[in-house]
Amino acid sequence: MNTIKFKSIGTIHSPFKDLEGMPIQPIGARGIKGEINVNHEYNGGLKDLEGFSHIILIYHLHLSKGHLLEVKPFLDTEKRGIFATRAPKRPNPIGLSVVKLEKIEGNTIHIADVDIVDGTPLLDIKPYIPHFDKHPDDEIIIGWFEDKYNDASSKKSDGRFKE
Amino acid sequence: MNTIKFKSIGTIHSPFKDLEGMPIQPIGARGIKGEINVNHEYNGGLKDLEGFSHIILIYHLHLSKGHLLEVKPFLDTEKRGIFATRAPKRPNPIGLSVVKLEKIEGNTIHIADVDIVDGTPLLDIKPYIPHFDKHPDDEIIIGWFEDKYNDASSKKSDGRFKE
Repeated sequence: MNTIKFKSIGTIHSPFKDLEGMPIQPIGARGIKGEINVNHEYNGGLKDLEGFSHIILIYHLHLSKGHLLEVKPFLDTEKRGIFATRAPKRPNPIGLSVVKLEKIEGNTIHIADVDIVDGTPLLDIKPYIPHFDKHPDDEIIIGWFEDKYNDASSKKSDGRFKE
Repeated sequence: MNTIKFKSIGTIHSPFKDLEGMPIQPIGARGIKGEINVNHEYNGGLKDLEGFSHIILIYHLHLSKGHLLEVKPFLDTEKRGIFATRAPKRPNPIGLSVVKLEKIEGNTIHIADVDIVDGTPLLDIKPYIPHFDKHPDDEIIIGWFEDKYNDASSKKSDGRFKE
């Protein structure tokens, strides 16, 4: 009916074998290295990518089971609407991270600042071009995160989204 | 086999009824208004979202047919690897835009700076929190875009990705 079908185009590898104890955002994953093995058939699409310092990864939150409309995020003690968070239990379990691109060797992309669990199926790679996303005159207001985002660098995940 | 299934959680509306003549990035869509009709079952997930000035929309590039590994982007005269561009003919046709959030009324989200074609199926909404994405000490290098991104504000799409 309403089903949209995608496929894994590669696999993201990281030191995180479990959803617990992970950094909750790239800003808290500074220096953590990982690599992406892109399926060989998509190799040609990586041309010119190495010129970028940062890339956007869009991936399947494959360990997330079911969804909730409200969740208590790692950074908060109150329940928030799922779309006002980056928690994994989303109607469509799609993850997004900006990571540092270190080097591309064949179909392997070496990355850093990785906040993604090992074995995650990759859906897309886009160049990170912040100039495209926001007009320089615009003020950014970050809602309930406003007084909490400093904690994102140090806070680690717990088991709350595992079941 | 390798199929990952998502569903549309709503529809994005905009003044752009056709893929030609559109702004090619939100930065070129300044002031263009649109609205998102979120399916009623996901209404509860919008709680707390209105506190954010900008949101990330992840959507299905539903008019994109097939994929290419190299494309000539709107901003360039040379072919680039698809993952080094934001062109629509991707192995998984997933679009990403940061838009301004103006107001939420029931299940309708009023947005601005919209570079998305009318009728696009929405997959996910995430709060835009640039502090999460990049360490403030990191330099951003944007590859082949480096001397071209000023054009993104004015350049309009043509028909090259329609077929």
